[in-house]
Amino acid sequence: MSEYTVLAEISVAKISKEIALEKACVFGCGVSTGLGAVWNTCKVEQGSSVAVFGLGAVGLAVIQGAKMAGATTIIAVDINPSKFEMARSLGATDFVNSKELDKPVQQHIAGDLTQWGVDYSFDCTGNTEVMRAALECAHRGWGESCVIGVAASGHEISTRPFQLVTGRVWRGTAFGGFKSRRDVPKLVQRNLDGDLPIDHFITHRFEGVGATTNAIEALHSGCCLRAVVKYGPTL
Amino acid sequence: MSEYTVLAEISVAKISKEIALEKACVFGCGVSTGLGAVWNTCKVEQGSSVAVFGLGAVGLAVIQGAKMAGATTIIAVDINPSKFEMARSLGATDFVNSKELDKPVQQHIAGDLTQWGVDYSFDCTGNTEVMRAALECAHRGWGESCVIGVAASGHEISTRPFQLVTGRVWRGTAFGGFKSRRDVPKLVQRNLDGDLPIDHFITHRFEGVGATTNAIEALHSGCCLRAVVKYGPTL
Repeated sequence: MSEYTVLAEISVAKISKEIALEKACVFGCGVSTGLGAVWNTCKVEQGSSVAVFGLGAVGLAVIQGAKMAGATTIIAVDINPSKFEMARSLGATDFVNSKELDKPVQQHIAGDLTQWGVDYSFDCTGNTEVMRAALECAHRGWGESCVIGVAASGHEISTRPFQLVTGRVWRGTAFGGFKSRRDVPKLVQRNLDGDLPIDHFITHRFEGVGATTNAIEALHSGCCLRAVVKYGPTL
Repeated sequence: MSEYTVLAEISVAKISKEIALEKACVFGCGVSTGLGAVWNTCKVEQGSSVAVFGLGAVGLAVIQGAKMAGATTIIAVDINPSKFEMARSLGATDFVNSKELDKPVQQHIAGDLTQWGVDYSFDCTGNTEVMRAALECAHRGWGESCVIGVAASGHEISTRPFQLVTGRVWRGTAFGGFKSRRDVPKLVQRNLDGDLPIDHFITHRFEGVGATTNAIEALHSGCCLRAVVKYGPTL
Protein backbone atom coordinates (compact mmCIF):
# COMPACT_ATOMS: atom_id res chain seq x y z
CA MET A 1 0.00 0.00 0.00
CA SER A 2 1.19 3.49 -0.78
CA GLU A 3 -0.12 7.01 -1.05
CA TYR A 4 1.27 7.46 -4.55
CA THR A 5 1.81 5.07 -7.44
CA VAL A 6 3.21 5.26 -10.96
CA LEU A 7 1.08 3.61 -13.62
CA ALA A 8 1.55 3.03 -17.33
CA GLU A 9 -0.78 5.27 -19.31
CA ILE A 10 -2.50 2.23 -20.86
CA SER A 11 -3.37 0.96 -17.37
CA VAL A 12 -5.42 4.01 -16.44
CA ALA A 13 -9.08 4.62 -17.33
CA LYS A 14 -10.82 7.98 -17.12
CA ILE A 15 -14.22 7.41 -15.54
CA SER A 16 -17.17 9.68 -14.75
CA LYS A 17 -16.69 11.83 -11.64
CA GLU A 18 -20.28 11.11 -10.67
CA ILE A 19 -19.63 7.62 -9.36
CA ALA A 20 -18.35 7.14 -5.80
CA LEU A 21 -14.86 5.65 -5.84
CA GLU A 22 -15.93 3.09 -3.26
CA LYS A 23 -18.33 1.72 -5.87
CA ALA A 24 -16.24 2.28 -8.98
CA CYS A 25 -13.45 0.08 -7.59
CA VAL A 26 -15.64 -2.98 -8.10
CA PHE A 27 -15.19 -2.61 -11.86
CA GLY A 28 -11.43 -2.98 -11.46
CA CYS A 29 -11.39 -6.75 -11.63
CA GLY A 30 -13.67 -9.71 -10.83
CA VAL A 31 -17.10 -8.24 -11.54
CA SER A 32 -16.07 -6.87 -14.94
CA THR A 33 -14.36 -10.20 -15.64
CA GLY A 34 -17.54 -12.19 -15.03
CA LEU A 35 -19.71 -9.88 -17.11
CA GLY A 36 -17.17 -9.82 -19.95
CA ALA A 37 -16.75 -13.59 -19.99
CA VAL A 38 -20.46 -13.80 -20.87
CA TRP A 39 -20.71 -10.81 -23.19
CA ASN A 40 -17.32 -10.70 -24.93
CA THR A 41 -15.59 -14.06 -24.63
CA CYS A 42 -18.57 -16.41 -25.09
CA LYS A 43 -21.14 -13.99 -26.52
CA VAL A 44 -24.04 -15.77 -24.79
CA GLU A 45 -27.23 -15.34 -26.81
CA GLN A 46 -30.86 -14.92 -25.84
CA GLY A 47 -32.44 -18.24 -24.90
CA SER A 48 -29.12 -19.91 -24.04
CA SER A 49 -28.57 -22.38 -21.23
CA VAL A 50 -25.66 -21.62 -18.92
CA ALA A 51 -23.93 -23.36 -16.01
CA VAL A 52 -21.85 -21.37 -13.53
CA PHE A 53 -19.38 -23.12 -11.21
CA GLY A 54 -18.46 -21.13 -8.10
CA LEU A 55 -20.67 -18.37 -6.70
CA GLY A 56 -18.18 -15.81 -5.54
CA ALA A 57 -18.25 -12.31 -7.01
CA VAL A 58 -17.05 -13.56 -10.40
CA GLY A 59 -19.62 -16.35 -10.63
CA LEU A 60 -22.43 -14.06 -9.52
CA ALA A 61 -21.34 -11.51 -12.12
CA VAL A 62 -21.53 -14.29 -14.72
CA ILE A 63 -25.11 -15.01 -13.60
CA GLN A 64 -26.00 -11.32 -13.74
CA GLY A 65 -24.41 -10.98 -17.18
CA ALA A 66 -26.10 -14.14 -18.47
CA LYS A 67 -29.50 -12.97 -17.27
CA MET A 68 -28.95 -9.59 -18.97
CA ALA A 69 -27.92 -11.43 -22.17
CA GLY A 70 -31.22 -13.29 -22.14
CA ALA A 71 -30.12 -16.76 -20.99
CA THR A 72 -33.22 -18.68 -19.92
CA THR A 73 -31.61 -21.56 -18.02
CA ILE A 74 -28.90 -20.53 -15.55
CA ILE A 75 -27.58 -23.36 -13.38
CA ALA A 76 -25.69 -22.20 -10.28
CA VAL A 77 -23.20 -24.66 -8.79
CA ASP A 78 -21.40 -24.34 -5.45
CA ILE A 79 -20.51 -26.45 -2.41
CA ASN A 80 -21.78 -23.67 -0.12
CA PRO A 81 -25.59 -23.53 -0.36
CA SER A 82 -25.73 -20.16 1.41
CA LYS A 83 -24.64 -18.70 -1.95
CA PHE A 84 -27.81 -19.79 -3.72
CA GLU A 85 -30.07 -16.99 -2.46
CA MET A 86 -28.02 -14.23 -4.05
CA ALA A 87 -27.61 -16.36 -7.19
CA ARG A 88 -31.40 -16.66 -7.42
CA SER A 89 -31.91 -12.92 -6.99
CA LEU A 90 -29.51 -12.29 -9.88
CA GLY A 91 -31.25 -14.70 -12.25
CA ALA A 92 -30.14 -18.28 -11.58
CA THR A 93 -32.91 -20.79 -12.29
CA ASP A 94 -31.38 -24.05 -10.98
CA PHE A 95 -29.13 -24.80 -8.02
CA VAL A 96 -26.66 -27.62 -7.53
CA ASN A 97 -24.75 -28.40 -4.37
CA SER A 98 -22.12 -30.58 -5.99
CA LYS A 99 -21.09 -31.99 -2.61
CA GLU A 100 -24.46 -33.66 -2.20
CA LEU A 101 -24.52 -35.48 -5.54
CA ASP A 102 -23.94 -39.21 -5.87
CA LYS A 103 -22.49 -38.74 -9.37
CA PRO A 104 -20.07 -36.35 -11.08
CA VAL A 105 -21.64 -32.91 -11.40
CA GLN A 106 -21.19 -32.93 -15.19
CA GLN A 107 -23.37 -36.06 -15.39
CA HIS A 108 -26.02 -34.39 -13.27
CA ILE A 109 -26.11 -31.30 -15.48
CA ALA A 110 -25.86 -33.21 -18.78
CA GLY A 111 -28.32 -35.99 -18.06
CA ASP A 112 -30.63 -34.88 -15.24
CA LEU A 113 -31.01 -31.09 -15.44
CA THR A 114 -30.58 -30.95 -19.22
CA GLN A 115 -30.56 -33.79 -21.71
CA TRP A 116 -27.24 -33.13 -23.41
CA GLY A 117 -25.63 -30.29 -21.50
CA VAL A 118 -25.57 -26.51 -21.57
CA ASP A 119 -24.72 -24.07 -24.34
CA TYR A 120 -22.17 -22.28 -22.15
CA SER A 121 -20.39 -23.11 -18.90
CA PHE A 122 -18.07 -21.03 -16.77
CA ASP A 123 -15.49 -22.04 -14.20
CA CYS A 124 -15.21 -19.38 -11.51
CA THR A 125 -13.30 -21.49 -8.97
CA GLY A 126 -9.71 -21.91 -10.09
CA ASN A 127 -10.02 -25.63 -9.34
CA THR A 128 -8.78 -27.65 -12.31
CA GLU A 129 -11.15 -30.56 -11.58
CA VAL A 130 -14.06 -28.13 -11.72
CA MET A 131 -12.74 -26.74 -15.01
CA ARG A 132 -12.95 -30.27 -16.40
CA ALA A 133 -16.48 -30.74 -15.10
CA ALA A 134 -17.46 -27.42 -16.67
CA LEU A 135 -16.15 -28.48 -20.07
CA GLU A 136 -17.78 -31.89 -19.88
CA CYS A 137 -21.25 -30.52 -19.08
CA ALA A 138 -21.18 -28.39 -22.25
CA HIS A 139 -23.46 -29.55 -25.05
CA ARG A 140 -21.85 -31.81 -27.62
CA GLY A 141 -21.76 -30.24 -31.05
CA TRP A 142 -21.59 -26.63 -29.94
CA GLY A 143 -21.20 -26.17 -26.16
CA GLU A 144 -18.48 -23.79 -25.03
CA SER A 145 -16.73 -23.70 -21.67
CA CYS A 146 -14.80 -20.73 -20.36
CA VAL A 147 -12.07 -20.87 -17.72
CA ILE A 148 -12.12 -17.71 -15.61
CA GLY A 149 -10.66 -18.93 -12.32
CA VAL A 150 -6.93 -18.78 -11.72
CA ALA A 151 -5.47 -22.20 -10.93
CA ALA A 152 -2.79 -22.94 -8.38
CA SER A 153 0.72 -22.98 -9.79
CA GLY A 154 1.57 -26.24 -11.54
CA HIS A 155 -2.00 -27.53 -11.71
CA GLU A 156 -3.15 -28.68 -15.13
CA ILE A 157 -6.50 -29.18 -16.80
CA SER A 158 -7.19 -32.39 -18.66
CA THR A 159 -9.93 -34.24 -20.47
CA ARG A 160 -10.36 -36.87 -23.13
CA PRO A 161 -9.81 -35.30 -26.57
CA PHE A 162 -13.10 -36.94 -27.60
CA GLN A 163 -14.79 -34.13 -25.64
CA LEU A 164 -13.40 -31.61 -28.16
CA VAL A 165 -13.73 -33.81 -31.26
CA THR A 166 -17.45 -34.12 -30.52
CA GLY A 167 -17.80 -30.36 -30.76
CA ARG A 168 -17.12 -28.75 -27.40
CA VAL A 169 -14.92 -25.63 -27.25
CA TRP A 170 -12.59 -24.82 -24.37
CA ARG A 171 -11.68 -21.17 -23.89
CA GLY A 172 -10.53 -18.82 -21.18
CA THR A 173 -10.75 -15.18 -20.39
CA ALA A 174 -8.72 -12.48 -18.68
CA PHE A 175 -10.67 -9.41 -17.51
CA GLY A 176 -13.58 -10.77 -19.55
CA GLY A 177 -12.06 -9.58 -22.78
CA PHE A 178 -12.64 -5.95 -21.84
CA LYS A 179 -9.97 -3.40 -22.71
CA SER A 180 -9.73 -1.55 -19.43
CA ARG A 181 -9.08 1.98 -20.73
CA ARG A 182 -11.81 1.79 -23.34
CA ASP A 183 -14.42 -0.29 -21.50
CA VAL A 184 -14.28 0.46 -17.77
CA PRO A 185 -15.63 4.00 -18.33
CA LYS A 186 -18.56 2.46 -20.24
CA LEU A 187 -19.31 0.01 -17.43
CA VAL A 188 -19.22 2.87 -14.93
CA GLN A 189 -21.61 4.88 -17.11
CA ARG A 190 -24.01 1.94 -17.39
CA ASN A 191 -24.01 1.74 -13.60
CA LEU A 192 -24.75 5.46 -13.33
CA ASP A 193 -27.53 5.05 -15.87
CA GLY A 194 -29.08 2.42 -13.62
CA ASP A 195 -28.88 -0.59 -15.93
CA LEU A 196 -25.89 -2.30 -14.30
CA PRO A 197 -26.38 -2.45 -10.53
CA ILE A 198 -23.34 -3.62 -8.57
CA ASP A 199 -24.08 -2.60 -4.97
CA HIS A 200 -24.92 -6.20 -4.06
CA PHE A 201 -21.29 -7.18 -4.59
CA ILE A 202 -20.09 -4.93 -1.77
CA THR A 203 -20.91 -6.95 1.34
CA HIS A 204 -18.25 -5.48 3.64
CA ARG A 205 -16.86 -1.98 4.17
CA PHE A 206 -13.85 -0.94 6.21
CA GLU A 207 -12.15 2.37 7.03
CA GLY A 208 -8.45 3.03 7.10
CA VAL A 209 -5.27 1.26 6.05
CA GLY A 210 -5.22 -0.68 9.30
CA ALA A 211 -8.45 -2.48 8.39
CA THR A 212 -6.93 -4.08 5.30
CA THR A 213 -6.24 -7.25 7.26
CA ASN A 214 -9.89 -7.38 8.32
CA ALA A 215 -10.93 -7.10 4.69
CA ILE A 216 -8.75 -10.05 3.74
CA GLU A 217 -10.15 -12.07 6.64
CA ALA A 218 -13.67 -11.25 5.48
CA LEU A 219 -12.86 -12.47 1.95
CA HIS A 220 -11.65 -15.77 3.40
CA SER A 221 -14.74 -16.19 5.58
CA GLY A 222 -16.96 -17.45 2.75
CA CYS A 223 -19.70 -14.90 3.38
CA CYS A 224 -18.00 -11.93 1.71
CA LEU A 225 -18.19 -11.00 -1.96
CA ARG A 226 -16.24 -7.74 -2.08
CA ALA A 227 -14.81 -5.85 0.88
CA VAL A 228 -14.10 -2.19 0.17
CA VAL A 229 -11.50 -0.46 2.32
CA LYS A 230 -11.59 3.33 2.31
CA TYR A 231 -8.18 4.95 2.80
CA GLY A 232 -7.62 8.51 3.94
CA PRO A 233 -10.20 11.26 4.45
CA THR A 234 -13.48 11.26 2.56
CA LEU A 235 -13.16 13.53 -0.48
CA MET B 1 -16.61 -56.63 -46.32
CA SER B 2 -19.84 -57.49 -48.03
CA GLU B 3 -21.51 -57.17 -51.41
CA TYR B 4 -24.57 -55.49 -49.91
CA THR B 5 -25.08 -53.18 -46.96
CA VAL B 6 -28.01 -51.45 -45.26
CA LEU B 7 -27.46 -47.78 -44.49
CA ALA B 8 -29.54 -45.17 -42.72
CA GLU B 9 -30.90 -42.66 -45.21
CA ILE B 10 -29.04 -39.80 -43.46
CA SER B 11 -25.73 -41.63 -44.01
CA VAL B 12 -26.05 -41.66 -47.79
CA ALA B 13 -25.07 -38.81 -50.14
CA LYS B 14 -26.14 -38.56 -53.76
CA ILE B 15 -23.12 -37.50 -55.80
CA SER B 16 -22.57 -36.71 -59.44
CA LYS B 17 -22.31 -39.77 -61.70
CA GLU B 18 -19.45 -38.09 -63.55
CA ILE B 19 -16.83 -38.80 -60.90
CA ALA B 20 -15.09 -42.19 -60.83
CA LEU B 21 -15.98 -44.05 -57.64
CA GLU B 22 -12.30 -44.80 -57.09
CA LYS B 23 -11.76 -41.07 -56.68
CA ALA B 24 -15.01 -40.14 -54.98
CA CYS B 25 -14.26 -42.50 -52.08
CA VAL B 26 -11.53 -40.13 -50.92
CA PHE B 27 -14.22 -37.65 -49.84
CA GLY B 28 -15.68 -40.23 -47.47
CA CYS B 29 -13.45 -39.38 -44.54
CA GLY B 30 -9.97 -37.95 -43.87
CA VAL B 31 -9.55 -35.58 -46.80
CA SER B 32 -12.93 -33.93 -46.24
CA THR B 33 -12.15 -33.81 -42.52
CA GLY B 34 -8.91 -31.89 -43.06
CA LEU B 35 -10.49 -29.42 -45.49
CA GLY B 36 -13.50 -28.88 -43.24
CA ALA B 37 -11.39 -28.36 -40.11
CA VAL B 38 -9.89 -25.34 -41.88
CA TRP B 39 -13.00 -24.03 -43.62
CA ASN B 40 -15.82 -24.87 -41.20
CA THR B 41 -14.43 -25.49 -37.73
CA CYS B 42 -11.72 -22.82 -37.58
CA LYS B 43 -12.74 -20.62 -40.52
CA VAL B 44 -9.14 -19.75 -41.38
CA GLU B 45 -8.96 -16.31 -42.99
CA GLN B 46 -6.80 -14.84 -45.71
CA GLY B 47 -3.35 -13.89 -44.40
CA SER B 48 -3.50 -16.29 -41.45
CA SER B 49 -0.59 -18.27 -40.07
CA VAL B 50 -1.18 -21.98 -39.61
CA ALA B 51 0.74 -24.92 -38.11
CA VAL B 52 -0.09 -28.49 -39.10
CA PHE B 53 1.10 -31.43 -37.00
CA GLY B 54 1.23 -34.74 -38.86
CA LEU B 55 1.47 -34.96 -42.64
CA GLY B 56 -0.74 -37.91 -43.46
CA ALA B 57 -3.75 -37.44 -45.70
CA VAL B 58 -5.59 -35.40 -43.06
CA GLY B 59 -2.66 -33.06 -42.41
CA LEU B 60 -2.00 -32.59 -46.12
CA ALA B 61 -5.69 -31.82 -46.65
CA VAL B 62 -5.39 -29.19 -43.91
CA ILE B 63 -2.46 -27.65 -45.79
CA GLN B 64 -4.37 -27.72 -49.07
CA GLY B 65 -7.44 -26.18 -47.40
CA ALA B 66 -5.38 -23.52 -45.62
CA LYS B 67 -3.65 -22.54 -48.87
CA MET B 68 -7.04 -22.28 -50.60
CA ALA B 69 -8.30 -20.15 -47.68
CA GLY B 70 -5.42 -17.72 -48.23
CA ALA B 71 -3.15 -18.59 -45.31
CA THR B 72 0.26 -17.08 -45.99
CA THR B 73 2.35 -18.94 -43.40
CA ILE B 74 1.79 -22.70 -43.30
CA ILE B 75 4.17 -24.59 -41.02
CA ALA B 76 4.30 -28.35 -41.68
CA VAL B 77 5.45 -30.55 -38.78
CA ASP B 78 6.30 -34.25 -38.91
CA ILE B 79 8.94 -36.66 -37.69
CA ASN B 80 9.22 -38.17 -41.19
CA PRO B 81 10.93 -35.62 -43.45
CA SER B 82 9.95 -37.55 -46.60
CA LYS B 83 6.50 -35.98 -46.11
CA PHE B 84 7.76 -32.43 -46.62
CA GLU B 85 7.92 -32.52 -50.43
CA MET B 86 4.19 -33.16 -50.85
CA ALA B 87 3.46 -30.64 -48.10
CA ARG B 88 5.44 -28.02 -50.03
CA SER B 89 3.65 -28.79 -53.29
CA LEU B 90 0.30 -28.22 -51.53
CA GLY B 91 1.31 -24.87 -50.05
CA ALA B 92 3.36 -25.36 -46.88
CA THR B 93 5.94 -22.60 -46.40
CA ASP B 94 7.96 -23.88 -43.43
CA PHE B 95 9.02 -27.36 -42.39
CA VAL B 96 9.82 -28.73 -38.95
CA ASN B 97 11.19 -32.17 -38.15
CA SER B 98 10.23 -32.15 -34.48
CA LYS B 99 12.58 -35.07 -33.80
CA GLU B 100 15.60 -32.93 -34.64
CA LEU B 101 14.79 -30.01 -32.32
CA ASP B 102 16.62 -29.38 -29.08
CA LYS B 103 13.51 -27.74 -27.56
CA PRO B 104 9.77 -28.44 -27.46
CA VAL B 105 8.24 -27.89 -30.89
CA GLN B 106 5.78 -25.33 -29.51
CA GLN B 107 8.72 -23.20 -28.37
CA HIS B 108 10.32 -23.46 -31.80
CA ILE B 109 7.12 -22.35 -33.55
CA ALA B 110 6.24 -19.64 -31.01
CA GLY B 111 9.67 -18.09 -30.55
CA ASP B 112 11.80 -18.99 -33.57
CA LEU B 113 9.52 -19.36 -36.60
CA THR B 114 6.99 -16.81 -35.36
CA GLN B 115 7.27 -14.37 -32.48
CA TRP B 116 4.15 -15.32 -30.54
CA GLY B 117 2.69 -18.32 -32.30
CA VAL B 118 0.25 -19.06 -35.08
CA ASP B 119 -3.33 -18.00 -35.64
CA TYR B 120 -4.47 -21.61 -36.11
CA SER B 121 -2.94 -25.00 -35.37
CA PHE B 122 -4.17 -28.48 -36.21
CA ASP B 123 -3.35 -31.81 -34.65
CA CYS B 124 -3.56 -34.56 -37.28
CA THR B 125 -1.71 -37.24 -35.31
CA GLY B 126 -3.97 -38.56 -32.55
CA ASN B 127 -1.03 -38.20 -30.13
CA THR B 128 -2.16 -36.32 -27.01
CA GLU B 129 1.30 -34.82 -26.42
CA VAL B 130 1.20 -33.38 -29.93
CA MET B 131 -2.29 -32.00 -29.25
CA ARG B 132 -0.81 -30.11 -26.31
CA ALA B 133 2.07 -28.79 -28.41
CA ALA B 134 -0.42 -27.64 -31.05
CA LEU B 135 -2.45 -25.70 -28.48
CA GLU B 136 0.62 -24.14 -26.93
CA CYS B 137 2.03 -22.85 -30.23
CA ALA B 138 -1.20 -20.93 -30.89
CA HIS B 139 -0.97 -17.15 -30.55
CA ARG B 140 -1.90 -15.77 -27.16
CA GLY B 141 -4.96 -13.56 -27.28
CA TRP B 142 -6.65 -15.23 -30.26
CA GLY B 143 -4.89 -18.41 -31.46
CA GLU B 144 -7.11 -21.44 -31.97
CA SER B 145 -6.09 -25.08 -31.97
CA CYS B 146 -8.15 -27.87 -33.45
CA VAL B 147 -7.90 -31.55 -32.50
CA ILE B 148 -8.59 -33.73 -35.54
CA GLY B 149 -6.65 -36.88 -34.71
CA VAL B 150 -8.29 -39.70 -32.80
CA ALA B 151 -6.43 -40.54 -29.59
CA ALA B 152 -5.83 -44.00 -28.18
CA SER B 153 -8.43 -45.12 -25.67
CA GLY B 154 -7.87 -43.67 -22.20
CA HIS B 155 -5.34 -41.05 -23.28
CA GLU B 156 -6.07 -37.52 -22.11
CA ILE B 157 -5.03 -34.06 -23.21
CA SER B 158 -3.76 -31.60 -20.68
CA THR B 159 -2.27 -28.16 -20.37
CA ARG B 160 -1.97 -25.33 -17.86
CA PRO B 161 -5.26 -23.39 -17.72
CA PHE B 162 -3.15 -20.25 -18.13
CA GLN B 163 -2.90 -21.23 -21.82
CA LEU B 164 -6.66 -20.69 -22.17
CA VAL B 165 -6.93 -17.71 -19.81
CA THR B 166 -4.41 -15.89 -21.98
CA GLY B 167 -6.72 -16.23 -24.95
CA ARG B 168 -6.11 -19.51 -26.74
CA VAL B 169 -9.08 -21.62 -27.84
CA TRP B 170 -9.09 -25.43 -27.92
CA ARG B 171 -11.56 -27.10 -30.26
CA GLY B 172 -11.99 -30.31 -32.15
CA THR B 173 -13.70 -31.51 -35.26
CA ALA B 174 -15.43 -34.59 -36.60
CA PHE B 175 -15.65 -34.88 -40.40
CA GLY B 176 -14.51 -31.25 -40.49
CA GLY B 177 -17.94 -30.00 -39.55
CA PHE B 178 -19.35 -31.07 -42.93
CA LYS B 179 -22.81 -32.60 -43.04
CA SER B 180 -22.16 -35.59 -45.25
CA ARG B 181 -25.44 -35.73 -47.16
CA ARG B 182 -25.46 -32.01 -47.87
CA ASP B 183 -21.77 -31.33 -48.35
CA VAL B 184 -20.10 -34.38 -49.93
CA PRO B 185 -21.94 -33.81 -53.23
CA LYS B 186 -20.60 -30.24 -53.23
CA LEU B 187 -17.04 -31.39 -52.63
CA VAL B 188 -17.38 -33.90 -55.46
CA GLN B 189 -18.70 -31.18 -57.75
CA ARG B 190 -15.81 -28.87 -56.87
CA ASN B 191 -13.44 -31.68 -57.80
CA LEU B 192 -15.21 -32.17 -61.13
CA ASP B 193 -15.04 -28.42 -61.74
CA GLY B 194 -11.28 -28.62 -61.29
CA ASP B 195 -10.89 -26.41 -58.24
CA LEU B 196 -10.38 -29.18 -55.67
CA PRO B 197 -7.80 -31.67 -56.92
CA ILE B 198 -7.46 -34.82 -54.80
CA ASP B 199 -5.60 -37.27 -57.06
CA HIS B 200 -2.39 -36.69 -55.09
CA PHE B 201 -3.94 -38.39 -52.06
CA ILE B 202 -4.29 -41.72 -53.88
CA THR B 203 -0.78 -43.14 -53.73
CA HIS B 204 -1.68 -46.83 -53.94
CA ARG B 205 -4.25 -48.81 -55.92
CA PHE B 206 -5.23 -52.44 -55.54
CA GLU B 207 -7.66 -54.77 -57.27
CA GLY B 208 -9.94 -57.29 -55.61
CA VAL B 209 -11.09 -58.11 -52.11
CA GLY B 210 -8.00 -60.21 -51.55
CA ALA B 211 -5.76 -57.14 -51.82
CA THR B 212 -7.37 -55.44 -48.83
CA THR B 213 -4.59 -56.72 -46.59
CA ASN B 214 -2.01 -55.22 -48.94
CA ALA B 215 -3.80 -51.88 -48.73
CA ILE B 216 -3.64 -51.93 -44.94
CA GLU B 217 0.04 -52.84 -45.08
CA ALA B 218 0.63 -49.93 -47.44
CA LEU B 219 -1.11 -47.54 -45.01
CA HIS B 220 1.19 -48.72 -42.22
CA SER B 221 4.32 -48.33 -44.35
CA GLY B 222 4.57 -44.57 -43.88
CA CYS B 223 4.76 -43.85 -47.61
CA CYS B 224 1.06 -44.23 -48.38
CA LEU B 225 -1.60 -41.55 -48.12
CA ARG B 226 -4.68 -43.33 -49.40
CA ALA B 227 -4.85 -46.85 -50.85
CA VAL B 228 -7.90 -47.48 -53.00
CA VAL B 229 -9.03 -51.07 -53.40
CA LYS B 230 -11.36 -51.78 -56.31
CA TYR B 231 -13.81 -54.60 -55.66
CA GLY B 232 -15.66 -56.52 -58.33
CA PRO B 233 -15.75 -55.85 -62.08
CA THR B 234 -15.18 -52.38 -63.49
CA LEU B 235 -18.56 -50.75 -64.17
